[in-house]
Amino acid sequence: MAESKTATKGASGVTTEGQGSGGAAILHGGDLDGARLAFPHAPEPWVDLSTGINPWPYPLPPIPADAWNRLPARGAEEGLREAAAACYGAPSAANVAAASGSQALIQLLPRLRASGTVAVLAPTYAEHAACWAGAGHVVREVAGFDALADGEAADVVVVVNPNNPDGRTLSVAALLGLAERQAARGGWLVVDEAFADADPAASVAGFADEPGLVVLRSFGKFFGLAGLRLGIALCAPDLAGALRAAIGPWAVSGPGLAVATAALADRVWIDATRARLAAAAAALDACLVVVGLRVVGGTSLFRLVADRRAAALHRGLGEAGILVRRFERQADWLRLGLPPDEESVIRLRDACVRILAGTDPSAR
Amino acid sequence: MAESKTATKGASGVTTEGQGSGGAAILHGGDLDGARLAFPHAPEPWVDLSTGINPWPYPLPPIPADAWNRLPARGAEEGLREAAAACYGAPSAANVAAASGSQALIQLLPRLRASGTVAVLAPTYAEHAACWAGAGHVVREVAGFDALADGEAADVVVVVNPNNPDGRTLSVAALLGLAERQAARGGWLVVDEAFADADPAASVAGFADEPGLVVLRSFGKFFGLAGLRLGIALCAPDLAGALRAAIGPWAVSGPGLAVATAALADRVWIDATRARLAAAAAALDACLVVVGLRVVGGTSLFRLVADRRAAALHRGLGEAGILVRRFERQADWLRLGLPPDEESVIRLRDACVRILAGTDPSAR
Repeated sequence: MAESKTATKGASGVTTEGQGSGGAAILHGGDLDGARLAFPHAPEPWVDLSTGINPWPYPLPPIPADAWNRLPARGAEEGLREAAAACYGAPSAANVAAASGSQALIQLLPRLRASGTVAVLAPTYAEHAACWAGAGHVVREVAGFDALADGEAADVVVVVNPNNPDGRTLSVAALLGLAERQAARGGWLVVDEAFADADPAASVAGFADEPGLVVLRSFGKFFGLAGLRLGIALCAPDLAGALRAAIGPWAVSGPGLAVATAALADRVWIDATRARLAAAAAALDACLVVVGLRVVGGTSLFRLVADRRAAALHRGLGEAGILVRRFERQADWLRLGLPPDEESVIRLRDACVRILAGTDPSAR
Repeated sequence: MAESKTATKGASGVTTEGQGSGGAAILHGGDLDGARLAFPHAPEPWVDLSTGINPWPYPLPPIPADAWNRLPARGAEEGLREAAAACYGAPSAANVAAASGSQALIQLLPRLRASGTVAVLAPTYAEHAACWAGAGHVVREVAGFDALADGEAADVVVVVNPNNPDGRTLSVAALLGLAERQAARGGWLVVDEAFADADPAASVAGFADEPGLVVLRSFGKFFGLAGLRLGIALCAPDLAGALRAAIGPWAVSGPGLAVATAALADRVWIDATRARLAAAAAALDACLVVVGLRVVGGTSLFRLVADRRAAALHRGLGEAGILVRRFERQADWLRLGLPPDEESVIRLRDACVRILAGTDPSAR
């Protein structure tokens, strides 16, 4: 499972180049352009179930013209950091750094440490390993949490929790214990909580003062505004300050700051959305089970199916204008986001029934 | 003028920390929050002349809901890169990398090279020297262009052209000669063209294929949408690809991509705006000369005044609710952006007359 790349200096003068971190080599959800090329006869409109983005976005508040026209004011960014700390349960705005998407933070963190060893609990979101390797670190993918404590020590440990795509959730106690060990060696524990909004009890954001702990939150998924581009890092104030310095001023757009600051403070919408997502995930499970598929994991924002007919299902659904997420290294897996309406659920169910009726259960 | 900082490893585990690149230590225009604190009795609304942002922004086209709700599609970013290449005169979209503001590119470039020597043609936008020094490079500020060629060689040379705040413009031939020398030593010439839109003949964007040349463009200033956060790097395809890989996917917001792609292609608006800005800059000069001030430089987006009474003018204008840009190291300089309307011009003129009438011309 080892996947390491060494620093090289090419003709461009760039010392380290990320392989795949430009998005070309790594498979991502949401690529409707690619789906239309792959399935040119699929009916429109597509139902995109290939991401883990809430299909019922936070309603956009009015955006003042100044948010577009002026550089974001210092007070606007501070207001966002306060709202993020309060929403995510971090001690204070001093623990917060904001960037234009959590991907931007995933790209940045590896450039803030000298080359070292990195362990990524896998399988998971592929950009973590790619970005650390691309910046010249030696990256190992580790299959089990216990191995991280037991002879698999590394300068930086990266855990996605709850995990994407299987929803595996580690306990707060286990994560804090690991964070303490990482801090003792001058290392970091990076906990990517991109899908933690629906299950706040799983979050370690409240412990952001712990040295060496770096929690990443993704605004766009739970709030359904992935195009807004806002990612949040929660960590000890000295590291948060170093991150803010590395990110620089005005990294988040003025409209993004205005919308996100309102959304993060809207407890009524947040609570209602948690309930709505949980209900929708249960309804999706019911639909999948009815057609004979096995749900092996997930979160309220996506469900993971394991089936030997996954490739045929991906292809058949694509031909029916329904995009789901497949995985290069786990050929039996399919990840499905929440259908946005009843009509989409019925399209998904009917397509699955049709595909599975024509597929040998033992085929791939 | 030497200004270098060495890499240190603090408690946060971060190897290099930028001093000032978080925006706290460096003076920036546009800080109305700070102005209201400094001048609590100033009348509202403020006239903010402290930036070089076009006060007549590109009119926002309708923004589709998908731009907010979905991750920006690959095709949307490619469309933006094509529009940017065409607008700025670069050979092709392969020469383009887009980030959430040119500041984000200024933060990133120093992290893509091993520590080396950097020469910044000064005085200029302070973030260049701060970001290179903050990332562990040895930075010299150089006073004249000739010195760059003559015994002041460095791995990276940074030039703002036209320069901020004095508008000093280097010839295309001089820049291309320097780029060639930089490439021969495996170095870079970074040309920050944040204020080149009004004077396209000064741009070297058309030579983006030259190895070692990195041109930075700032979308928000000329198009008057500084809150949108879009910066463009134009360089040889291999370096542009390395930049895109380091920036990662989805760095620019969906709404930003939609608006900017339309704006960059709107030749009618661009041509009309060039004429409008030139006329407004001439009108501002006339106003400043009438009150007895000396305009020593600038571009169509801002004008630079040199006067021994600059501190008194900055303070008196602040008390009158007019924010202009002062400079810590050039106490005689004031930079003024374009007043947005005739009423603002009159407020500026009357305030200057009042302040200068009560000020000893030899006082500071």
